[in-house]
Amino acid sequence: MTNTPDMTELADKIRAGDRRALARAITLVESARADHRQQATALLQALGRDRQALRIGLSGTPGVGKSTFIEAFGLMLTGQGKRVAVLAVDPSSARTGGSILGDKTRMEQLSRDPRAFIRPSPSQSQMGGVARRTREAVALCEAAGFDVVLIETVGVGQSETMVSGMVDLFVLLIAPAGGDELQGVKRGIMEMADLILVNKADGDLKPTARRTQADYAGALRLLRRRPQDPEGIPKALCVSAVTGEGLATAWDEIAGLAAWRQTQGHWDNTRAEQALGWFAEEVRLQLMARLAADPALKGGVRALEQEVAEGRLSPAAAAARALGALDQG
Amino acid sequence: MTNTPDMTELADKIRAGDRRALARAITLVESARADHRQQATALLQALGRDRQALRIGLSGTPGVGKSTFIEAFGLMLTGQGKRVAVLAVDPSSARTGGSILGDKTRMEQLSRDPRAFIRPSPSQSQMGGVARRTREAVALCEAAGFDVVLIETVGVGQSETMVSGMVDLFVLLIAPAGGDELQGVKRGIMEMADLILVNKADGDLKPTARRTQADYAGALRLLRRRPQDPEGIPKALCVSAVTGEGLATAWDEIAGLAAWRQTQGHWDNTRAEQALGWFAEEVRLQLMARLAADPALKGGVRALEQEVAEGRLSPAAAAARALGALDQG
Repeated sequence: MTNTPDMTELADKIRAGDRRALARAITLVESARADHRQQATALLQALGRDRQALRIGLSGTPGVGKSTFIEAFGLMLTGQGKRVAVLAVDPSSARTGGSILGDKTRMEQLSRDPRAFIRPSPSQSQMGGVARRTREAVALCEAAGFDVVLIETVGVGQSETMVSGMVDLFVLLIAPAGGDELQGVKRGIMEMADLILVNKADGDLKPTARRTQADYAGALRLLRRRPQDPEGIPKALCVSAVTGEGLATAWDEIAGLAAWRQTQGHWDNTRAEQALGWFAEEVRLQLMARLAADPALKGGVRALEQEVAEGRLSPAAAAARALGALDQG
Repeated sequence: MTNTPDMTELADKIRAGDRRALARAITLVESARADHRQQATALLQALGRDRQALRIGLSGTPGVGKSTFIEAFGLMLTGQGKRVAVLAVDPSSARTGGSILGDKTRMEQLSRDPRAFIRPSPSQSQMGGVARRTREAVALCEAAGFDVVLIETVGVGQSETMVSGMVDLFVLLIAPAGGDELQGVKRGIMEMADLILVNKADGDLKPTARRTQADYAGALRLLRRRPQDPEGIPKALCVSAVTGEGLATAWDEIAGLAAWRQTQGHWDNTRAEQALGWFAEEVRLQLMARLAADPALKGGVRALEQEVAEGRLSPAAAAARALGALDQG
């Protein structure tokens, strides 16, 4: 970093709650251009980290009614005077391809709510990039003073692991199902869940939803309690985004767990650990970016990866060569 | 890397099955000394990757009878003429502190078996180091021509995640339990399991073991099948390390799953992915090692980590400074 660009004006606007400034800043952190990266880094530094939102990761496979849930849940929160930001993460962004229309039409009322801010997932790129810009977008929303930042993922697994590394709480939304329809949860995701919500617990599906809830509650009982969980967490509850039933209870669970973790110190510890993890990841990303900046080096790294994947070169030897190339570069 | 040390002689001895050479080589990869790292890297390169063992991760909390299981399971395999290596991973190595006696007395018969090789966990160090030397020790055992490499972990969570990134199969060993005794499995571990074995399914505990097996089988049914799993995987089975009941079946399941994944191409894909992951990790480790080599830089990185953890510096900015320091260093 030579002379860092001055980002104080944009930072002030964001902290003042200027939505267009926030949107512009998110576009900035989404850019991979070297000068944009530098500005983004300066901006985040200028914004500081004194404001914290409750970061909630929300996962659910297509069809569980995620959009309807976020719309209903978000409107309930804004109705209580809370400011809610919704960020969508979809690395395999076949869905909306990052079109704003996509997500906004999915949550029509919420997107018109002055207390809400909805940001669709940008068009696809490699996970490292998605992880970085998502967590930076979250940091921007926190600096903008939102009370709740909902990070929506599509239940493909990889993105959940990434998101669970940047949230305070992870909510898993599932659909009522019985017998063979079960097996709905991608491996690894249930483990991250701080709360499992069986959606569509209304009308004819209500009994099925209750059975599904009982199934998951049973499965969760087989897991050991984590230090950051009070007695009886994680829970499995029934909700209905349509009737609104269970939404308030779900929020009480979330708020209660967050409060408990704050008083116990788990909240700060987790955030500190997450930040250190990002630091290590940033070192790797920025080093790779340097290597990629030089066409010769870039080709070199690709070649090294090829050799490693084919087992012709050990990871340690390949890494040593990559760093060696960096010195000459 | 300047002039790479010649490791062909040691490599030849290892490939010839010289156990003392193997033990010496593992001690070498366990060393953090810069010149040792260089030799280790050269050795692994000289050994190549043409030999593959079936890498099995085995996890279970203290008390499930892990040692007794490995002893019985290992002796069954060596009895079939297979060569078995056992590596213990225990980052929180309060247990044996890496004393050879510790692990060898835990598996007395197996440790005297000429077809078996038991390597205790080295004394504790940070996870990055543990991960590197464990996967390098595994590579050494493969080059030494072992058919099966068992990597034992202690069920503390973090080490399982690490080990699952370097094995072909992950086996979770649990003890019979009912009602409140359940909650035995650390979150995240059940998700990695390709096979769950309820141990101690003998005598009075047999009925309890069957119930526990049914509980886990039920929980596993809630998980979606992964592409690398055939129908009905993962399974939960009962075994008894004491009577030997179920051990043969457990091996058939493991061998069958491994064979299926090989024919489907998942085996090679997984190994390639794992190798690429290690490459990225090695780049980070070696970069950190460079920074640590210079006392001034080392202090600098510590200070940066502190600022990141306290939220005074963004991970991206900290990483940029760390890399900047590298350039001056």
